[in-house]
Amino acid sequence: MTYCLGIKTKVGLVMASDGRTNAGYDQVNVCRKMHIFSHPGDRVFILLTSGSLSVTQSVIKLLERDFKLGEGLACAESFYEAARMVGAQVRRVSDMDREALEKDDYQFNVHILLGGQIRGEDPDLYMIYPQGNPLNVTEESPFLQIGECKYGRPVLERAIRYESTTLDEAAKCAMISIDSTMRSNVTVGPPIDLVVYSNNELDIRRRRRFASTDADFLELQAKWESALRRAAHEQPTIRFEEPTGQGS
Amino acid sequence: MTYCLGIKTKVGLVMASDGRTNAGYDQVNVCRKMHIFSHPGDRVFILLTSGSLSVTQSVIKLLERDFKLGEGLACAESFYEAARMVGAQVRRVSDMDREALEKDDYQFNVHILLGGQIRGEDPDLYMIYPQGNPLNVTEESPFLQIGECKYGRPVLERAIRYESTTLDEAAKCAMISIDSTMRSNVTVGPPIDLVVYSNNELDIRRRRRFASTDADFLELQAKWESALRRAAHEQPTIRFEEPTGQGS
Repeated sequence: MTYCLGIKTKVGLVMASDGRTNAGYDQVNVCRKMHIFSHPGDRVFILLTSGSLSVTQSVIKLLERDFKLGEGLACAESFYEAARMVGAQVRRVSDMDREALEKDDYQFNVHILLGGQIRGEDPDLYMIYPQGNPLNVTEESPFLQIGECKYGRPVLERAIRYESTTLDEAAKCAMISIDSTMRSNVTVGPPIDLVVYSNNELDIRRRRRFASTDADFLELQAKWESALRRAAHEQPTIRFEEPTGQGS
Repeated sequence: MTYCLGIKTKVGLVMASDGRTNAGYDQVNVCRKMHIFSHPGDRVFILLTSGSLSVTQSVIKLLERDFKLGEGLACAESFYEAARMVGAQVRRVSDMDREALEKDDYQFNVHILLGGQIRGEDPDLYMIYPQGNPLNVTEESPFLQIGECKYGRPVLERAIRYESTTLDEAAKCAMISIDSTMRSNVTVGPPIDLVVYSNNELDIRRRRRFASTDADFLELQAKWESALRRAAHEQPTIRFEEPTGQGS
């Protein structure tokens, strides 16, 4: 399983992914799901992937090959065009693999988050569906998730606001969201990759990988647990009317 | 959709259910999913249901008919036997309806939570699967959920402990868990039914229905939102190493 999320606020982006892959319960491995393509000063792309590892690897390989040749993402004229280019590679791999997969009842299920910026435009964030079509994040719901989304959603829905959330806050919320998911689904786990990107940096300056033993991550997990318990404790006690009759 | 949960601690039970049913997105109705059978002083059963309304209604009808005749749950000698009796009625309805439903690609998908107490035993809590087999709650994971479970799970996993959580705390957490689910899935919603049951009461003394306009419920929703945002804010800021090189 996988859990990745991207947040877009007025001041930048936060992108985070877990680092576990599994083919059945008895084959769990570490796997990087965050892939970065950048020409510092001109463009930066952060891709997060979920779905069949074989399929997502092929999509990344094709994008990487083009990028190295100065094609594809390297020369996209807009971020929308970049999202379409990622979608085109998803469709290309679909053409290669989908039929064979479905013959054996495997689903073609790749989802990709694409965040970043091209010089001259604001940063942007898209989700690319398995069919290759792109979905743009909105200011009303300024985050996108792929993989095991539900456990980590409540904190995002309550704490992330496009206009007012700082990148420090968004980064904390991303880590809390991943921690909530790890707690409930053992196939989502460390290492966690995190990138924080401020508008117009056009380079990756704040990037960190958290191992399961990372002291800061362990501190965040412990502090969040006690903060959540305290928050629940501080809610008003629920009142009930006195029973009107005696049980008989 | 539905979200129901039951919590069992050392001192009693908390049972809660949402109140919305939908057959397609354009047919959303209010629906009671909490059903109580009691002989005060001797036994009390709280049933929460999820799945096809037609099916859960049939199961409840059959249990109710027996109970009124002094049969079924009215004369179960143990709570395990009671859970088996609920399972037997699920299987009976399955025999009546499953084949016809599956012909039109509808799933036979009823899940039931059964909490309560029979005099002479401790209170107990079971989930009954669509196949009729019962699952008992455990001290290690002292709650059971049916329906849309994931959004509301993080707060339960962190705040509910069999040995130490009071019923007041458990009731708050149940309402927070339902609120988290409502926030993310519009087909889960009020009215919310809540029962708090202390060991050996053998009667329903604390029961409350929260409408969407309930002032206490609105207060809890607002306070929880601000508490969660504050808790996220109070987490330590995530540090990054200074970038080692300049982008070029």
